[in-house]
Amino acid sequence: MSVAYLNGQYLPLEDVRISPLDRGFLFADGIYEVAAVIDGRLVDSASHLARLERSCTEIGIALPLTLDEIEAAQKALVAHNGLGEGLVYLQITRGADVTRDFIPPAGLQPTLFMFVQDKSFLDVPAAKTGVAVATMADLRWARRDIKSVGLLAQAMAKMAAKEAGAQEAWMIEDGFITEGASSTAFIVTDEGIVTRPYSQSVLAGCTGAALTALAEESGIAVIRRPFTLAEALAAKEAFMTSASTFCLSIVRIDGQPVGDGTPGPVATRLRELYIDFARRTAV
Amino acid sequence: MSVAYLNGQYLPLEDVRISPLDRGFLFADGIYEVAAVIDGRLVDSASHLARLERSCTEIGIALPLTLDEIEAAQKALVAHNGLGEGLVYLQITRGADVTRDFIPPAGLQPTLFMFVQDKSFLDVPAAKTGVAVATMADLRWARRDIKSVGLLAQAMAKMAAKEAGAQEAWMIEDGFITEGASSTAFIVTDEGIVTRPYSQSVLAGCTGAALTALAEESGIAVIRRPFTLAEALAAKEAFMTSASTFCLSIVRIDGQPVGDGTPGPVATRLRELYIDFARRTAV
Repeated sequence: MSVAYLNGQYLPLEDVRISPLDRGFLFADGIYEVAAVIDGRLVDSASHLARLERSCTEIGIALPLTLDEIEAAQKALVAHNGLGEGLVYLQITRGADVTRDFIPPAGLQPTLFMFVQDKSFLDVPAAKTGVAVATMADLRWARRDIKSVGLLAQAMAKMAAKEAGAQEAWMIEDGFITEGASSTAFIVTDEGIVTRPYSQSVLAGCTGAALTALAEESGIAVIRRPFTLAEALAAKEAFMTSASTFCLSIVRIDGQPVGDGTPGPVATRLRELYIDFARRTAV
Repeated sequence: MSVAYLNGQYLPLEDVRISPLDRGFLFADGIYEVAAVIDGRLVDSASHLARLERSCTEIGIALPLTLDEIEAAQKALVAHNGLGEGLVYLQITRGADVTRDFIPPAGLQPTLFMFVQDKSFLDVPAAKTGVAVATMADLRWARRDIKSVGLLAQAMAKMAAKEAGAQEAWMIEDGFITEGASSTAFIVTDEGIVTRPYSQSVLAGCTGAALTALAEESGIAVIRRPFTLAEALAAKEAFMTSASTFCLSIVRIDGQPVGDGTPGPVATRLRELYIDFARRTAV
C-alpha cells in the first residue's frame, strides 16, 4: 500500500479522499505533472516544476506551495514509499467550490494531490522491441501547451490505438502530426531528428527538450518543423519521448514498418544518452 | 445543508468524498447533466436523460443505473432537499483506478454523483434586462456534442467574458458563432430564429430543442444554419438558452447593442412559452 500526499498530509493512498465539488472533478480545472524517479531521485525535476508553474499561471491557479516546497514534498513522498524506480504523479486544481460556477469565486484553496507508482521503465521489453503507433485526428482543445487534466480526447485516442493494436496514438491536424497522446513525436531523416516546433498546438515536452539538447551536444542536428504521416513512413526512424517512457523507438505506424521495422541506432543512442542524463542529474 | 447522492447513498453534501483516483478527477473522463427543477419537479427530464445516455455511450461508459432508476434517484434527491426551484447536477465518471492508465482497465465501477442547488431562475433580473455576451475564439475540443466534464476552455471563456463585463461568452470558429460557453446561441432575423445545426461542433441543447419546437408550434420559423458575429450584430434580437437560465435575451455583444439594446418580443415570448412548457411537462 503506497503513501500519497494531499494538501500537506501524507496518508495511505486508499484513504485519500477529496470533495466531488473539487473543480478538478467538475470542470477539469487543474494541471498535472508526472516525474520519473530512478535510484530514488527525481528526474529532470526543475524542468517539470517550471512547466507546472507555467501551466498554473496560464489558467490563473496560484501555486499553493513554492516550487522548492513542492519538490521537497515530492522527495518526502518518494522517501515515505521507499521508491527506487517509478513515477510521482502531481495534480493541482483550483479547489472545491459548492457554487459550481464556471467562474470560480475568489479565495479558493487549491488542491495539491500526489501519489507514486512503483514502475520499471528502464529495463522494459518495449525498449528493445520498439512500439507501434496508430494515427488519428487530433480532437483536443487549442491550448495543448497547458498540461491540463482535461485528457478525455487523449484517453479516447489511446483506447482507439489499442483497438488498432498499437501502444500509442499519433494525432494529426491539418495534415501534420502534432504529437502522441502522451508523448512527443520525432522522426529521423537525413537532416537529423525532426520534431514539431513549440506552439499552443503541442505540449512542450520536458523529456523531449532534454533529449534534443543531448542530441545537439552529441552532434545530431535537431530540426523543429511539422512533419506529415508520409514523411514519418518514409523516415529512417521514428521515436517518442515522455517522462514515463523516456525514449522509445516507433517501429510501426498504422501497421506499416518504419525503416526496417526494428529500433534504429539514433533512437537507441538517444535513449542511452537520456538515461545517463537522468541518472546524472536526478535530485 | 443540502443532501447529495453518491453511488446509491444519500448524505450531507459536505460529507461526500471520492477518491482522487477517480478518472473524473484525473482525466475528465466523465459526463454531466444539469436539470432544472420547478414546483419540485424535473424539467424536460426525458431529454436530459437521453442526452446523458448518448454522451456515456459515445465515450464508452456503461450507465450504472437505468435511466428510470437515475430519474427516480433525482426525484428522491429533490424530495430529500425539499427543493422547489433549483437545479439537479448529475455526473457520471468511468470510476476510480489506481493504475492511472489512459486506457481504463475492464470492470471499473462508474461513479454517479448528484447534488442540488437551491436557485431562482424564473423571477430573475436578467429575464427583464437581458444579458451581455463577449465573443472569443472557440478553444474547445472537437467533440462538443459529448457533454463531458472537460470544461476548462468554457471556464476560461466565462472568466474572460466576465473581465469584459459580459455574463456569457459566445465562441467563434471559422468565422461563425458556435455557441455560448454554457448555452445555445440564437439570433432573430426576418427569416425567423436562426441557430447552428447539430454537429460535433456544438452540444445539442435540450432547452434549445424544446424551445425551437415551441417556436415552430407557434408559427415562428426555425432556420438551422451557422451565423456570423456580423449577422448577430445586425439581427433584430439575440438570445441564449440553457437548462439553468431557460431563455434570456442578449442585448449587447462585445459592447454593441443588439436591436434597440433591450429584450425583444420574440425572445420574451419564447421564454414565456418555455416556462409554460416546463411547468406543464415537469415530472
